[in-house]
Amino acid sequence: MDRPYAIGIDVGGTNTVVGIVDKRGQILRSGSIKTARHAEVSDYLDELTDLLNQIMEDASISKDQVKGIGVGAPNGNYFSGSIEFAPNLRWKGVIPFAQLLEERSGIPVALTNDANAAAIGEMTYGAARGMKDFIVITLGTGVGSGIVVNGQLVYGHDGFAGELGHVIMRRNNGRLCGCGRTGCLEAYSSATGVARTAREYLDLKPDKSQLRSIPLEDITSKDVFDAAMAGDKMAQDIFKFTGEMLGEAFADFVSFSSPEAIILFGGLAKAGDLIMNPIRESMERNLLAIFKNKVNLLFSELKESDAAVLGASALGWEVK
Amino acid sequence: MDRPYAIGIDVGGTNTVVGIVDKRGQILRSGSIKTARHAEVSDYLDELTDLLNQIMEDASISKDQVKGIGVGAPNGNYFSGSIEFAPNLRWKGVIPFAQLLEERSGIPVALTNDANAAAIGEMTYGAARGMKDFIVITLGTGVGSGIVVNGQLVYGHDGFAGELGHVIMRRNNGRLCGCGRTGCLEAYSSATGVARTAREYLDLKPDKSQLRSIPLEDITSKDVFDAAMAGDKMAQDIFKFTGEMLGEAFADFVSFSSPEAIILFGGLAKAGDLIMNPIRESMERNLLAIFKNKVNLLFSELKESDAAVLGASALGWEVK
Repeated sequence: MDRPYAIGIDVGGTNTVVGIVDKRGQILRSGSIKTARHAEVSDYLDELTDLLNQIMEDASISKDQVKGIGVGAPNGNYFSGSIEFAPNLRWKGVIPFAQLLEERSGIPVALTNDANAAAIGEMTYGAARGMKDFIVITLGTGVGSGIVVNGQLVYGHDGFAGELGHVIMRRNNGRLCGCGRTGCLEAYSSATGVARTAREYLDLKPDKSQLRSIPLEDITSKDVFDAAMAGDKMAQDIFKFTGEMLGEAFADFVSFSSPEAIILFGGLAKAGDLIMNPIRESMERNLLAIFKNKVNLLFSELKESDAAVLGASALGWEVK
Repeated sequence: MDRPYAIGIDVGGTNTVVGIVDKRGQILRSGSIKTARHAEVSDYLDELTDLLNQIMEDASISKDQVKGIGVGAPNGNYFSGSIEFAPNLRWKGVIPFAQLLEERSGIPVALTNDANAAAIGEMTYGAARGMKDFIVITLGTGVGSGIVVNGQLVYGHDGFAGELGHVIMRRNNGRLCGCGRTGCLEAYSSATGVARTAREYLDLKPDKSQLRSIPLEDITSKDVFDAAMAGDKMAQDIFKFTGEMLGEAFADFVSFSSPEAIILFGGLAKAGDLIMNPIRESMERNLLAIFKNKVNLLFSELKESDAAVLGASALGWEVK
């Protein structure tokens, strides 16, 4: 029987979003539930399975027509199908998520982390169509990455490869990162990193800035973006600093896998040229000569509200 | 017809070494010529082809019994089969080496750089047998790398991936590297880097050291090794510094591809525990928690005098 549909599930800290997708990347039906509503993962999975059955029924699609379910989840391990010690979920320890959902739904399930799902999504439906070597960098609350080499996602021997938010950019006096170490890229170049940079600048620099009208601890990357777009010099400098560090990091990533493109995905990528221009200038300045003017810097081509579900669904096509 | 032999060719700045290898990695016959003797690459290739024919005749092997020729060469590009702008060879520009040798020898030729050849050699005959995800780091005059992901060498979109000697370890006030940039791993953790560290230490520190008996500009990494083995504290500190920086770099490499092992290859690896102990301690200290106590640090298992030829020959088995 032909199986022309895949299901994508994006497990976020707040919401879990589900969509049925066709081969062209059209989302036919979607829905969501609250991830944190249930203390027990089995109760959550029951609600999730009900939602799956409901949207398949609404779309007049039987489970025999679904190739597979792809799940993007924090700390998702492709090899084990488990969510392992995810700090932003209520369920602790190792959750055999793919196996549990497969038992309930009767549909094969594959699972990976959010950034890897984004990379598969870009390769299947987005900016990386036709590419065999590229890197997706997700710029959200944290910095994540999905690396594709020779047309295959890089999982590493344990399923945890691609933690590029945690390469060390400042070996001395670096900022404390959520991972417990200091100087990680994520501590500077995430949305939270932008807000931290704003607080540092406001504290250390005497310059005027419209950011001074906001209580220091309340400043978000969105505030910095708005101020920069309104012409605020300090806010623009904050994006310049953020982008320059990303560019330095990208130059090292290129030395590793020499990708055709690096694709920016996630909330902070919405800053557009404000972040892309300093990234491009800094990356080119820092690249080894043989790599200069070869690497495309691109934005995700997945529609933002659908991106996570599309990415996860792309993994659904690959389910064995 | 069965083709039970492969030929490996290691093109070095000084010597070019050739060997006929069987499937178990035994070198049946070998020979060498001077790489730099000929100003014209065509004259060099004529002499190389004569040598190939001679050793095949000596071993009573016809070209029909040879699966392929693998070549490891500085700046060798696997995709194009060319040696491109190799700084330590007399032939300038882009040399279509594989094509020229194939025309002369009548045997299919594949070519890559020295470090990639070493990685294929370890996977075929050495410490990485059975591994699908590992990294070989070559510690010689420079620092090179061959990265294997999912059982395949990482070439990148242009054939130049795996330049891990040129990730930036010191973003401020870094040493000038041969590549023209500053702060590269290679400027510190190569054999030349060890000698540079020795000169810096002797210049900056007041401590006694037997290295002071050697004229500053003549000190080599071998001198530092000998002094360290004889109990010289400063020489031991130089290896500690070198290994600690490698360990910091390795922790970042693990965040990229999560390899099962990192394998040390080349002259400086002969320092053994003197360099391995600080690498191990520093890598573990710097690793992201999910990677701790998972990555094996190993030495090459290819016999040193044969390693480069064996690595190149392993590529010969893969010739299409």
